[in-house]
Amino acid sequence: MGRSVELAESLALPRGGRILLAVLDGLGDVSVPELGGRTPMEAADIPNLDALVRDSAIGQHVPVAQGITPGSGPAHMALFGYDPVDNLIGRGVLEVLGIGFPLEMGDLAARINFCTLDGDGVITDRRAGRISTGECEVLAEMLDAITIPGVQVIVRPVKEHRACVVFRGDGLRDGLSDTDPGEVGYRPLPVGSPSPDCARTAEVVGEFVRQAQEMLKDQVRANGILLRGIALNRAFRSFGERFRLDPAAVALYPMYRGLASLLGMTLLESSPGDLSGQVAAVHRALSLGHDFVFLHHKYTDSAGEDGDWKRKISALEDFDCALPGFLRGGFDVVAVTGDHSTPCPMKQHSWHPVPLLLHGGHQRVGWNDGFSERQAASGALGTINSLDLMPLLLASAGRLEKFGA
Amino acid sequence: MGRSVELAESLALPRGGRILLAVLDGLGDVSVPELGGRTPMEAADIPNLDALVRDSAIGQHVPVAQGITPGSGPAHMALFGYDPVDNLIGRGVLEVLGIGFPLEMGDLAARINFCTLDGDGVITDRRAGRISTGECEVLAEMLDAITIPGVQVIVRPVKEHRACVVFRGDGLRDGLSDTDPGEVGYRPLPVGSPSPDCARTAEVVGEFVRQAQEMLKDQVRANGILLRGIALNRAFRSFGERFRLDPAAVALYPMYRGLASLLGMTLLESSPGDLSGQVAAVHRALSLGHDFVFLHHKYTDSAGEDGDWKRKISALEDFDCALPGFLRGGFDVVAVTGDHSTPCPMKQHSWHPVPLLLHGGHQRVGWNDGFSERQAASGALGTINSLDLMPLLLASAGRLEKFGA
Repeated sequence: MGRSVELAESLALPRGGRILLAVLDGLGDVSVPELGGRTPMEAADIPNLDALVRDSAIGQHVPVAQGITPGSGPAHMALFGYDPVDNLIGRGVLEVLGIGFPLEMGDLAARINFCTLDGDGVITDRRAGRISTGECEVLAEMLDAITIPGVQVIVRPVKEHRACVVFRGDGLRDGLSDTDPGEVGYRPLPVGSPSPDCARTAEVVGEFVRQAQEMLKDQVRANGILLRGIALNRAFRSFGERFRLDPAAVALYPMYRGLASLLGMTLLESSPGDLSGQVAAVHRALSLGHDFVFLHHKYTDSAGEDGDWKRKISALEDFDCALPGFLRGGFDVVAVTGDHSTPCPMKQHSWHPVPLLLHGGHQRVGWNDGFSERQAASGALGTINSLDLMPLLLASAGRLEKFGA
Repeated sequence: MGRSVELAESLALPRGGRILLAVLDGLGDVSVPELGGRTPMEAADIPNLDALVRDSAIGQHVPVAQGITPGSGPAHMALFGYDPVDNLIGRGVLEVLGIGFPLEMGDLAARINFCTLDGDGVITDRRAGRISTGECEVLAEMLDAITIPGVQVIVRPVKEHRACVVFRGDGLRDGLSDTDPGEVGYRPLPVGSPSPDCARTAEVVGEFVRQAQEMLKDQVRANGILLRGIALNRAFRSFGERFRLDPAAVALYPMYRGLASLLGMTLLESSPGDLSGQVAAVHRALSLGHDFVFLHHKYTDSAGEDGDWKRKISALEDFDCALPGFLRGGFDVVAVTGDHSTPCPMKQHSWHPVPLLLHGGHQRVGWNDGFSERQAASGALGTINSLDLMPLLLASAGRLEKFGA
């Protein structure tokens, strides 16, 4: 796995064309009965994308591996040329990135679920009766006051019964297991330490749980906590250094900003609302001298998660309207794709290959006249792995040396 | 990588059908604006290939990996079933093979660039003002007289400012770095030795450089040398032994003859000029009992390198005219493909998949009616890696046992 990207890294040149990678989150879909078996891409009115396809090579990419449904973390890591299995980002880290918290290297992050315990300490509700976000904020502020010698403890609310905790200090280790047994009728599990190496980290987290339980004991519903996805914010190799690019990210959602930031991309601000703010931000990236821009469009995915094919069609059409604006930036190579599929009939991420459009550089063009799952499957790029995308982008932009004489 | 070829090697039978592998160098292309977006393959009049396609399975292969542009060495190694990354042939070795010099195992080969140095030994011209080939021949003969105890030194001219040197002796090691700093304004680098193992080899090469500089010091333009691609001619496993074949090569260009020779193929002579000499040589291979013939056709690549789509079309049509002659030899399996793409609009090798035609044995035929990039992308063979070609050829020729019971 990943031979193409390893070679590309070793062959990357510090010069060449400017690249736009536009990610329409959850782009791919499956046949929707209400659309007569068409997909939202087939049903959408996207004349600008269709026109671009006529002058592009299209294809599809498989995120991670056939049949594997990726989370947002692995799916994006693969697009960016990081083997998603070797570079798995812990759930706790993603959760904290998702609220826009400025995580530092070596921080240990975990998701907190407030829960209800009975008199024997047995879990009776793993979501504490879905307390309100307001109540969550009060409780998170309470737990944020916890002090543990040698470690800074930071607790932040997320939504309803969900919060997160960050431990900041020297020598924290990865590998602790969840305290959430995953079912009611059990007591929360002790913080598991897989090796003597992690003993001190397990003690720190255990002490946090102990103090939290003590503070919460008089609450009616949220009188306990469960920790999940306890994960160290590890350092990833810089995307810019690996591929000899000066990358910028234009993304509205904190998690994608966080991901881009983990890889050392420069984050550009853009106003939320319609896509004109993002068009302006993309142009600003170019005027600042960036030669790679990651653009993230979230709404295709949210609509898919809600099973709302009408909204997914609208999200596609909105992007299509903005496309000429993005293209006016003057990129040499433009890719439009998704990180994974989020089929409306499934209301969740899926394993299906994701359509990919590659424009600019030298391509085999004129084979297709529309952007859809079906056309993508018979396009000139064929079916590739997501990890092959960065090598193809760099090659198309003339940024790779020849391999061997 | 290479699971198919490893298994094929272990399952190869010493009997079965006779195979022709015709390599049209640089075969694949991209859309050419002057051809209305068609490729040279689409524009060429190649009735014999088209007819063969109707009775063949076609597809495309990716050399090395997606997005990676291979040199001629790796591209051919992959076609022959040698992992191109694990079996990289050094640049110096290929350069020396390219002039038809009879390299021996264990020889250390390097490319020489004559250069101009100023009074402080700083490089002012990395190509010595592009001296004539005649001058190069005189200088190479001069350096050929250098003697180093325990090592034979052989210097041969190549073209203009380019020559090559071969060191022949026991215990020479691979891994030395270039003395060419790659830019003017610097002194030539010392011969770099990556480990104590290579110290003696670095001394030998360093002594050669010292003596060469001394000999050249009164030259006006070519008063210095730069060494590049210093590489050991390592032994590769015999192609014939690996796949239980008795292989022959029909190729006009020295480099491809050299490559075939490195893998232990028998080289057959053929007159240059039109392809009738090669047709005769291919027939001679069969009459000599060879059961695998590698036929190399260079002119598709040279035309692509020159960006001359008219000449690429002619080179395709020339091959097409000769095809019935090749087929009359009586092969059981015939493959027609390229080693890589050399698109005319790019004037260089590229990463694009290469069309492949597989005739004979038992195939799914009648799916396509012409030989082009577009038809190949939808052919019965699908998209494979170049390393999968040998297993498919052997299988089609009935030369592979079943795997497992």
